[in-house]
Amino acid sequence: MAQPGFIRDVKLVNGVNLTQLSENINAIRSDPKLAKFKFRSKNKWIFGGHNQITIGQFYGTNQEHRLNQTFKLEADEPPVLLGEDKGPNPVEYVLAALSACLTTTLAYHAAARGYRIDSIESEYEGDVDLQGFLCLRDDVRKGYQNIRVTFKVKGDIPEEMIHELLQISPVYDVVTNKVPVSIQVEKA
Amino acid sequence: MAQPGFIRDVKLVNGVNLTQLSENINAIRSDPKLAKFKFRSKNKWIFGGHNQITIGQFYGTNQEHRLNQTFKLEADEPPVLLGEDKGPNPVEYVLAALSACLTTTLAYHAAARGYRIDSIESEYEGDVDLQGFLCLRDDVRKGYQNIRVTFKVKGDIPEEMIHELLQISPVYDVVTNKVPVSIQVEKA
Repeated sequence: MAQPGFIRDVKLVNGVNLTQLSENINAIRSDPKLAKFKFRSKNKWIFGGHNQITIGQFYGTNQEHRLNQTFKLEADEPPVLLGEDKGPNPVEYVLAALSACLTTTLAYHAAARGYRIDSIESEYEGDVDLQGFLCLRDDVRKGYQNIRVTFKVKGDIPEEMIHELLQISPVYDVVTNKVPVSIQVEKA
Repeated sequence: MAQPGFIRDVKLVNGVNLTQLSENINAIRSDPKLAKFKFRSKNKWIFGGHNQITIGQFYGTNQEHRLNQTFKLEADEPPVLLGEDKGPNPVEYVLAALSACLTTTLAYHAAARGYRIDSIESEYEGDVDLQGFLCLRDDVRKGYQNIRVTFKVKGDIPEEMIHELLQISPVYDVVTNKVPVSIQVEKA
């Protein structure tokens, strides 16, 4: 796969390096193992609803990668949910993940198909009924019941194509479909 | 529902205000509409894989709430995925959301049941095969194929109870089950 750091002519559309994208796709076609990525994070509980997330490495293109910087994120709850508002809460992070993925997917896949995009803005709203989390009702789910998304896009791309490209988003897949999660617990 | 800001005796377990929790539950039992929350975020595309998330308000307990501060998050891709590493990437934000939610759920529900917890640390790893996102293979999903989680917990709580409480997490529900997402597009 292409590595950054050397000088050459590249084709940029929507800020996406199409030269590198095309090289990546060709490399994966000849060695599909290059496409297998493992993303990682760590979490440390602080107090009540406050905890810290650390993200600093992943595996992909047959090798370990360290990020240039280790990203630290704070999560907390607002006072009405017994927290101190030191960061977004967990379900707000779901909206952040979905929004980042839909946006990047649209920018990348529009570029790959030659559509110029000038701006992308989007808004998210999701419904949670706390009777689920508080175990007050078995028939109310604990997570989002629905998520509504509105996109405003400026650029030379048809509306139907925008809808089609947004469906390619990996986090859209995660949220609208099931992902198996295995949990191991070590008691210290 | 209880509001912060006045002085009184409260029962704190694991940093969780059990007095307020109990008052919230009683309030919701008498008016279930108090439990209906709407969480929100906004996203603005910057360039390539870089975009910015803003989180600053939500609806719940029959009223609008503004956070004390507006949270801004950066999302980007690493260079090998055509980005400039200006923030975690979208699928890493999914792990952040899941980790924050499992941790808070364990702290809150252990507190509600009287279990003392001294520390919680956890690690996350999820598999993505980029052949899905790159539309190179129809039989490879675009999002996570699997997520593996390991918890290390110190405290006076049985291992089976930890497993049971983690299942209550709203983001665990979002990731392991389906959430309907509706997308509206406005072309400018």
